[in-house]
Amino acid sequence: MTPKKIAVLGGGNGAHTMAAEFTLKGHTVNLYEMPQFKNNMKKVFETKTIYLQGNIKELQGPVTLNDVTDDIEKAVSGCDYICIVAPAFAHSGYAKLLKGHVKKEQIIVTFPGAFSALVLKKELDGPDCPIFADANNLPYDARLVAKGSDTVNVFGRNPINIAFLPADKGPSLIDEMREDLFPFEKIYTDVLECGLAIVNPDWHAGPVLFNISRIESPQVNFFLYEHGWTPSACRLNIAMDKERKALGNVLGYNLRPMEDFAGRPDDYQWTWQDLYKEGHGSIGLTPICGPNDINSRYLTEDIPFGLVPWAAIGELLGVDMPLTNGFIDIINVVHEKDWRKEGRSLEQLGIAGMTKETLLKYVHTGEK
Amino acid sequence: MTPKKIAVLGGGNGAHTMAAEFTLKGHTVNLYEMPQFKNNMKKVFETKTIYLQGNIKELQGPVTLNDVTDDIEKAVSGCDYICIVAPAFAHSGYAKLLKGHVKKEQIIVTFPGAFSALVLKKELDGPDCPIFADANNLPYDARLVAKGSDTVNVFGRNPINIAFLPADKGPSLIDEMREDLFPFEKIYTDVLECGLAIVNPDWHAGPVLFNISRIESPQVNFFLYEHGWTPSACRLNIAMDKERKALGNVLGYNLRPMEDFAGRPDDYQWTWQDLYKEGHGSIGLTPICGPNDINSRYLTEDIPFGLVPWAAIGELLGVDMPLTNGFIDIINVVHEKDWRKEGRSLEQLGIAGMTKETLLKYVHTGEK
Repeated sequence: MTPKKIAVLGGGNGAHTMAAEFTLKGHTVNLYEMPQFKNNMKKVFETKTIYLQGNIKELQGPVTLNDVTDDIEKAVSGCDYICIVAPAFAHSGYAKLLKGHVKKEQIIVTFPGAFSALVLKKELDGPDCPIFADANNLPYDARLVAKGSDTVNVFGRNPINIAFLPADKGPSLIDEMREDLFPFEKIYTDVLECGLAIVNPDWHAGPVLFNISRIESPQVNFFLYEHGWTPSACRLNIAMDKERKALGNVLGYNLRPMEDFAGRPDDYQWTWQDLYKEGHGSIGLTPICGPNDINSRYLTEDIPFGLVPWAAIGELLGVDMPLTNGFIDIINVVHEKDWRKEGRSLEQLGIAGMTKETLLKYVHTGEK
Repeated sequence: MTPKKIAVLGGGNGAHTMAAEFTLKGHTVNLYEMPQFKNNMKKVFETKTIYLQGNIKELQGPVTLNDVTDDIEKAVSGCDYICIVAPAFAHSGYAKLLKGHVKKEQIIVTFPGAFSALVLKKELDGPDCPIFADANNLPYDARLVAKGSDTVNVFGRNPINIAFLPADKGPSLIDEMREDLFPFEKIYTDVLECGLAIVNPDWHAGPVLFNISRIESPQVNFFLYEHGWTPSACRLNIAMDKERKALGNVLGYNLRPMEDFAGRPDDYQWTWQDLYKEGHGSIGLTPICGPNDINSRYLTEDIPFGLVPWAAIGELLGVDMPLTNGFIDIINVVHEKDWRKEGRSLEQLGIAGMTKETLLKYVHTGEK
């Protein structure tokens, strides 16, 4: 591996961990946080040092970064990779911020993605347009020990898959990126497959919808999986997941995140009893208490960055998704918002008015 | 009042009470129950006598009916009024049963209706077609003291409104019917307005949908109004009610059952806070425990006889009802059923393919 220059954009648990790990690997790493949030990580701005602790043998001790900055030009200039490690709602902000500061040789990887490559490309398209990639997950389970701390507890690693925009660039880049960054497992056909391969929105749908009253009543005795994961909730999850898979089929993908999650064979035909067993039988899930707020990420993330773009792509391609749409309509009432406007619309993805053919050409070649 | 001959069809609390009250008023009354259910009221079949008790001064003591029979011809022959007092799911069965046994001078009144006149007319149309009327409620709060008992506790009377099919017959009939049967309050424009003037489906929507997990977990500590009537539930109720009212507006009605229920002025603009106060502030509602079964009438009645025909009429007239439709789609998954087929479809109502104009002509004149 040849050492590279990498910018990590973001100020959360994942960004801290990633900047430290890339430095430990021998890369030159700049960590960037927006000026309005830099006070949250004052200590790291001053010392440029992050302390790693936790379960992962090779992620331990103090790590001093090349730079910690709130100057985007300084952060990304000359970098081979720009890694955005931020919640999905921040992606379009980063897209605007990066405009005029990127070059076509650079690769922007978003952890996790959810169609982010499309959002970024829409803003950054042109002669200097970099290459984009979306990862389907955060590579770590990690938490800063306290807000404003310079110390991160790293509990574990997550396997991650990746998609490229344009997809055609993937084969020539993936080997080096696996050495430089992470051992990406699956390479998706394209960023659409990656964005449709999120399990959360359909996995949370039934237990969240059928417990809104509990979620907005701050009762300590509510556990989403123990109490909310009922036969009806499982039936709704499966029915909504079928709509997602039907959309994937039209685009030529065999989406199977729920099967991956549960270690089931391809095209496993889920019954609600199977799913009930997965939910109630998981030691990782049953202890999860709450949510006790309708502004939980089970809704405010799953809808705008999952269900909304899925439904919009479904409408573009003529795939009927009544449950997905009904769910969005109902939660719009709950939140007194229009998630179709605030979330990842076709306009925000830069694919409005496309046909299936022009859409697939665009994600594969980057050409409209 | 000239004494009349009346058939009361049905074997439940309401039918028993109504047959007894009409007899006390001086009418000649036949009570009919289907052969397959007559064993449930063996005693009344043997003695033809019903005992009234409870709060209503004039509804007390033993009342001997003219006849109690499971022979439909014997029950309805020569009757001025045929009163169907049965759950909505039994109406189409009664329609089939009455075929060939009715005359055009007879008036069939259904307590309560929910578009039943349309269901009955579809089956009984022709030269002998009787006149139909739908009441919007049961006239009593009453309960047999035990299953199979001949004694009814009558707790109270309900004000009731009525609609005629054809609507044009109403003005010439209502005065006599008020003397003969009940002091009907409002006369609806037509049976469509009556069917759209049910408050339950939209009143129950949010608290039921957002508590499905609790409803299917038989926990004794769930009270629909105390626990389920949350801000989000109220918001969904109001939003769904707006769809119903928009449909009513297109047909020329000013639907206001929620306002009536709460004693609010016409066109009151409900906030979720108002509705929260109505639900939590009602001594009649807050003690209601459960439901603890997804096959509760809050779903199995409200959907097939409320939301389904509303959505179908909305589609016929081009009124967008996304929340109503999303709700049906989601509960179809919960029940593993297709309520659009099993409920009151346009076909079952006999109005498929009509335009607004032909539909309104039909309900007003009875002519297609």
